[in-house]
Amino acid sequence: MDNQAAESGLSFERVVFFSDAVFAIVITLLVLELKVPHITEHTESALRHALFELFPRVIGFVVSFLIIGLMWIEHHRIFRYIDNYNCGLLWRNLVLLLCVSFVPFPTALFSENFWSRTAFILYTGSFGAVATAKLFIWRHAVASGLLKKDLGPELARKIGRRSLAVPLSCALAIALSFVSVLIAPIAFAFIPVFARVLDPNTKQATDYADAAESA
Amino acid sequence: MDNQAAESGLSFERVVFFSDAVFAIVITLLVLELKVPHITEHTESALRHALFELFPRVIGFVVSFLIIGLMWIEHHRIFRYIDNYNCGLLWRNLVLLLCVSFVPFPTALFSENFWSRTAFILYTGSFGAVATAKLFIWRHAVASGLLKKDLGPELARKIGRRSLAVPLSCALAIALSFVSVLIAPIAFAFIPVFARVLDPNTKQATDYADAAESA
Amino acid sequence: MDNQAAESGLSFERVVFFSDAVFAIVITLLVLELKVPHITEHTESALRHALFELFPRVIGFVVSFLIIGLMWIEHHRIFRYIDNYNCGLLWRNLVLLLCVSFVPFPTALFSENFWSRTAFILYTGSFGAVATAKLFIWRHAVASGLLKKDLGPELARKIGRRSLAVPLSCALAIALSFVSVLIAPIAFAFIPVFARVLDPNTKQATDYADAAESA
Amino acid sequence: MDNQAAESGLSFERVVFFSDAVFAIVITLLVLELKVPHITEHTESALRHALFELFPRVIGFVVSFLIIGLMWIEHHRIFRYIDNYNCGLLWRNLVLLLCVSFVPFPTALFSENFWSRTAFILYTGSFGAVATAKLFIWRHAVASGLLKKDLGPELARKIGRRSLAVPLSCALAIALSFVSVLIAPIAFAFIPVFARVLDPNTKQATDYADAAESA
Repeated sequence: MDNQAAESGLSFERVVFFSDAVFAIVITLLVLELKVPHITEHTESALRHALFELFPRVIGFVVSFLIIGLMWIEHHRIFRYIDNYNCGLLWRNLVLLLCVSFVPFPTALFSENFWSRTAFILYTGSFGAVATAKLFIWRHAVASGLLKKDLGPELARKIGRRSLAVPLSCALAIALSFVSVLIAPIAFAFIPVFARVLDPNTKQATDYADAAESA
Repeated sequence: MDNQAAESGLSFERVVFFSDAVFAIVITLLVLELKVPHITEHTESALRHALFELFPRVIGFVVSFLIIGLMWIEHHRIFRYIDNYNCGLLWRNLVLLLCVSFVPFPTALFSENFWSRTAFILYTGSFGAVATAKLFIWRHAVASGLLKKDLGPELARKIGRRSLAVPLSCALAIALSFVSVLIAPIAFAFIPVFARVLDPNTKQATDYADAAESA
Repeated sequence: MDNQAAESGLSFERVVFFSDAVFAIVITLLVLELKVPHITEHTESALRHALFELFPRVIGFVVSFLIIGLMWIEHHRIFRYIDNYNCGLLWRNLVLLLCVSFVPFPTALFSENFWSRTAFILYTGSFGAVATAKLFIWRHAVASGLLKKDLGPELARKIGRRSLAVPLSCALAIALSFVSVLIAPIAFAFIPVFARVLDPNTKQATDYADAAESA
Repeated sequence: MDNQAAESGLSFERVVFFSDAVFAIVITLLVLELKVPHITEHTESALRHALFELFPRVIGFVVSFLIIGLMWIEHHRIFRYIDNYNCGLLWRNLVLLLCVSFVPFPTALFSENFWSRTAFILYTGSFGAVATAKLFIWRHAVASGLLKKDLGPELARKIGRRSLAVPLSCALAIALSFVSVLIAPIAFAFIPVFARVLDPNTKQATDYADAAESA
C-alpha cells in the first residue's frame, strides 16, 4: 500500500513535470520572436536605430514572459493543494497547456500590430483562456475530491472565487477595447480589486509565507 | 539491496522523464508553425482577413496538440504499469519518440495542403506509427517481465488488445482516403468501437478512477 | 508534519526544475542561430569558404553556451544552500530566467555585428543582468531566512560578496568599451581578481570538493 | 548526515536532469530542419515530387535522431555508475552537452550537401567529439572517485576501454573520407569490432539485463 502510494505519487509528478516543461518551453520560445535586424549600413547609429524599432517587440517579450511566469506561479499554487488526479484533470490540464502554448502567437501578432483591437482581443483572450482553464481545473479538483485532506472546504472555495479575478479582468479589458485599445489595459489594474471583492478577508501573499513557515 | 533498488528507480525515472520532455517539446513546437501574417495595409479588416486565412493552421495546431496530448496520456498509462526496463525497451521507446518528434512536419504539411491525400496519409500514418510503437513497447514489456508484480496477466492482455484500436483506425482511415479524403477522418470515430470489440468487457475510463481511489 | 515537509520539498523542486528547464532550452536554442549556408556552387572550396564566414557565429555560440553553462552552475551553487522559498524568491528567480532567456538575442546580434559597441554593451549587459538577478536572489534568501539551517552566516556573507564579482566585471567591460570594444573583454579577466578582493580567504573551487566529500 | 546525503542526491539529480533536458531538446529540434515544401502547382504528384526531394533530409533526421538517442543511452549508462560529482565533472559534462547541442548544425549541413567531404567530416567529427567528451567524463569520474562504491575497478576499466570504440571509428571514418565519402560510413561497422578488441570478454548487452534483474 505504501509502495503503491509512492508509485501513484510518481505518476502525478509526471503530470506536474510535463506541465512545467511546457511552461518552460513556451516562456523560452518567446525570445525567438526577437529577430536580429539586418542593417545595410554598418554604423552604430544604424544599429541603434534598428534596435529602437524592435522596442515594441522587446516590451511584448517582457510582458508575455512575466504573464506566463505569473500563470506558472498560479499553476504551481493550485497544484500544491492537489495530490491526486483522474482522467478529467489530465484533459483539463491539457487544455490549459494548449492555451499556454498558443500564447507566443498572439504575443507576436500584438507586438507587430499594437494599434489593432483584433490583436489586443486575441492577446487578452488567450490569457483569459488560460485563467479560465485554471478555474475549471480547480473546480474539477474540488468536485472530484482530488485535494489534499488537510485543505479545508473554506480555503478551497476562497481559491476558487479568487481565480475568477483574472478571467473577469480579461473580459473587462476586451469590453473596454471597443471603446479604445489604449485605455483597455487599465482593466488589468482591476485584478487585485476583483480579488478583494470576490474574497474579502484574504491577504493574497500570505499562503506562500505560511507554507514557508510550516515546511 | 534497498539502496540499489532506489538507484535503479532513479534510472527508470530518467527514461520516463526524457520521454516526457520530448513530448512536451514537440507539443510546444507546434505553435511555431503559426507564423504571424505580414499585412501591407494596416487596418482591422486586413488583419482579420489575414487571420481568417490562418484558420486551417490553427485547427491543425489544436488537433495535433490534442492528439499528441492523448498519446502522452497513453504513454503515461502504460508506463504506470512498467517498473523496470532493459535495452530493448529503451530502443523501442526511442523509436516511439522518433515518431512523436516527426509529427510537427506532417502537421504543417497537412494544414498547408489539406486537399491532399498524400499529406493526409503522412499525417495519419505518423500517428499510427506512434500508436504502433506503443503497442510494441507494451508487448516487449509483457514478454520481458518488466511489468509491476501486482498487475495480473489478464489486465496485461487487455491493455495489449485495446492498444490495437488506434493503429487499426489509422489503417482504416488511410484505406478510406483512397475513396475520399473528406470521409477518411470518419475512421477515427471507430477508435472506441475497435476498443470495445477488441476488449469487450472494459469501461476505458475506469482504470484512472481506480488508481485515484486506491492511491 | 513529515509528510508536509516532503510535499513542500516537491514544490521547491518544481521551482528548481523549472529553472533548469529554462536554462536547458536557452542553451540549446543558441544553435538555431547557426543557419546552414546556401551555396550556389557545389564544390568543397565554396562550402569551406561559406563555413569559414560562419566562424564568428560559431565562436558566439560556444562562448554564450559556456557563459550560460557557468550561470547554470552558479544557479545550481546558490540553490544548493536554499531549502525553502516564498513569493519574493519566485519573482526574483523569474526575473533571472527572463534575463537568461533574453541571451540568445544579444548573442545573435553581437556575432553578426562584432564590430559594434552597442551590440557588445547589450551582450555584456545581459550577462551582467543575470549575475545581478542572482545577487538579488541570494540577498533575498539570506534576508528572508530561506537558507539551510547548517549554513553559517559567515559563509552566506562570503557567497553574497563573491557574487558581486561578475556584475562588477560586466560594468567595467561596458566602461572599457567606450575606450575600445577590442580591449573591453579584458575586464572579464578581472572576475577572479574581484572575487579574491571581495572575499580574501576563499579558494573558489573548494566548496564543490567539500560537498563531494561530505556526501 | 542522512539528510545531507539526500540533499546532495537532489543536486546530482539536477546535473543528470539538465543533461536529459538538453538531449531531449536537441533530439526534438532536429525536426525543424524539415521545412514544408512550398509547391506552386496544387496536385498530388507535385506534392509527392516535392516530398521525394526532401528524402535525404528525412534520412538525416532519422539517423541523427538515432545517434543522439544512442548517445543519450550511453550517457545514461555511465551516469548509472556515478553517484557524486565535482566541479570538474560539471564542466566536462557541459562540454559534452555543447557538442550534443551543436549536432543539429552539421546534420542540416550534411543532409543538404551529402556529396561533400567537408560536411561529412564535420558531421562525423561532432559525433566523435561527443563520444570523446563522454570518455573524458568517465576517466575523470574514475580518477576522482565519483563512482558508486559497489562498482569494481575491473568493470570501471572495461567501460573506459569500450568507450574508445566510437571515437576510434569516427577517426577511421574521417580518414577513409579522404579516399571516398561513399565508403567512409563503413567505418561505423567497426564500432562493435573495436569494442570487442578493446574489451575482449564482454557481451555489451548484458549489463542492462543484469541491472534489470537485480533491481
